[in-house]
Amino acid sequence: MNERQRVRRPGGRSARVGAEVHQAVIDLINERGYGNFTVGQVAARAGVADSSIYRRWGSLETLLSDVVLTRLNAQSPMPDTGSLAGDLRTYAANVAREITGPDGLLLVRLAVALSSKGQQGLEAGEELRAERTRQLQSMLDRARERGEDAPDALGVLDHILAPMYIRVLFGMEITPDYVDGLVDRML
Amino acid sequence: MNERQRVRRPGGRSARVGAEVHQAVIDLINERGYGNFTVGQVAARAGVADSSIYRRWGSLETLLSDVVLTRLNAQSPMPDTGSLAGDLRTYAANVAREITGPDGLLLVRLAVALSSKGQQGLEAGEELRAERTRQLQSMLDRARERGEDAPDALGVLDHILAPMYIRVLFGMEITPDYVDGLVDRML
Repeated sequence: MNERQRVRRPGGRSARVGAEVHQAVIDLINERGYGNFTVGQVAARAGVADSSIYRRWGSLETLLSDVVLTRLNAQSPMPDTGSLAGDLRTYAANVAREITGPDGLLLVRLAVALSSKGQQGLEAGEELRAERTRQLQSMLDRARERGEDAPDALGVLDHILAPMYIRVLFGMEITPDYVDGLVDRML
Repeated sequence: MNERQRVRRPGGRSARVGAEVHQAVIDLINERGYGNFTVGQVAARAGVADSSIYRRWGSLETLLSDVVLTRLNAQSPMPDTGSLAGDLRTYAANVAREITGPDGLLLVRLAVALSSKGQQGLEAGEELRAERTRQLQSMLDRARERGEDAPDALGVLDHILAPMYIRVLFGMEITPDYVDGLVDRML
């Protein structure tokens, strides 16, 4: 491996490889479940060398976390409705729709898988959580800048996201009224 | 298999077989993780026939759920301190200690494993949740009978248990102050 290969090239080929590797991970998650495939199998499916994956992501855990984050950002972008109540309601409804859908508990399953994968797993989980928290915090900061009395991101995690995740995880139904109720209680 | 064998005998042998099967499940969970062993392997480890396990528990999912419930009941019995605040604080502190311990996320991991095991998994998860909810509800009912203004079990699940589970799951620390804060917010 020479120095040129180590350099991550922006755009073109790099983006294409990224998309192929992400798709391979999603296929393998759907076919086998988290934790039941290796970097080598992802590489073979995506038609790239193992070393390309290690160079770019460092570990399977970091790659998994990147795939989930990319999906979350695409499916549940942070809303900007002009009011805290509107933003929280929209955000909570998006999360509810996502976690009750077919790939529902992707994030929670990943957190469980990562939490049993030692230090690299913990770091990848932490990274993922930190990134989503930053996004949520900027939505809440916008509300504060408008003069609204906004909670912090951890309050939203504790009292809006956590109850929804745990209810879905335990096989309980979550209705739109229930989700709105969590937001109202917080506001 | 004749009719006599079908009858579940109370006490003696039945209790011994139950304990041996539970221990075999705990050993296999620790060695291989949830979902990575079969009824046949549990039976072999416990020195009983596969049919004894199917007869008594019906499925691997029901057996797993029974093992986890038995452990929870032993490790986190419902407190009875004479006041709602005392009961909730003790209960929350017990749960916090348990989920941050070495076998920490047993219940959440089981819920995740069961939620991907089809109908039998969902029913076993539901059973487990319902039993713990009944126990929690009787603690809250005692407070109501004393004239205290107690939340219901689902409120405790949503705003005390869920935040703790999700924080541990996402690799975040939970301190005694944080746990007390969740209880205070609810009271």
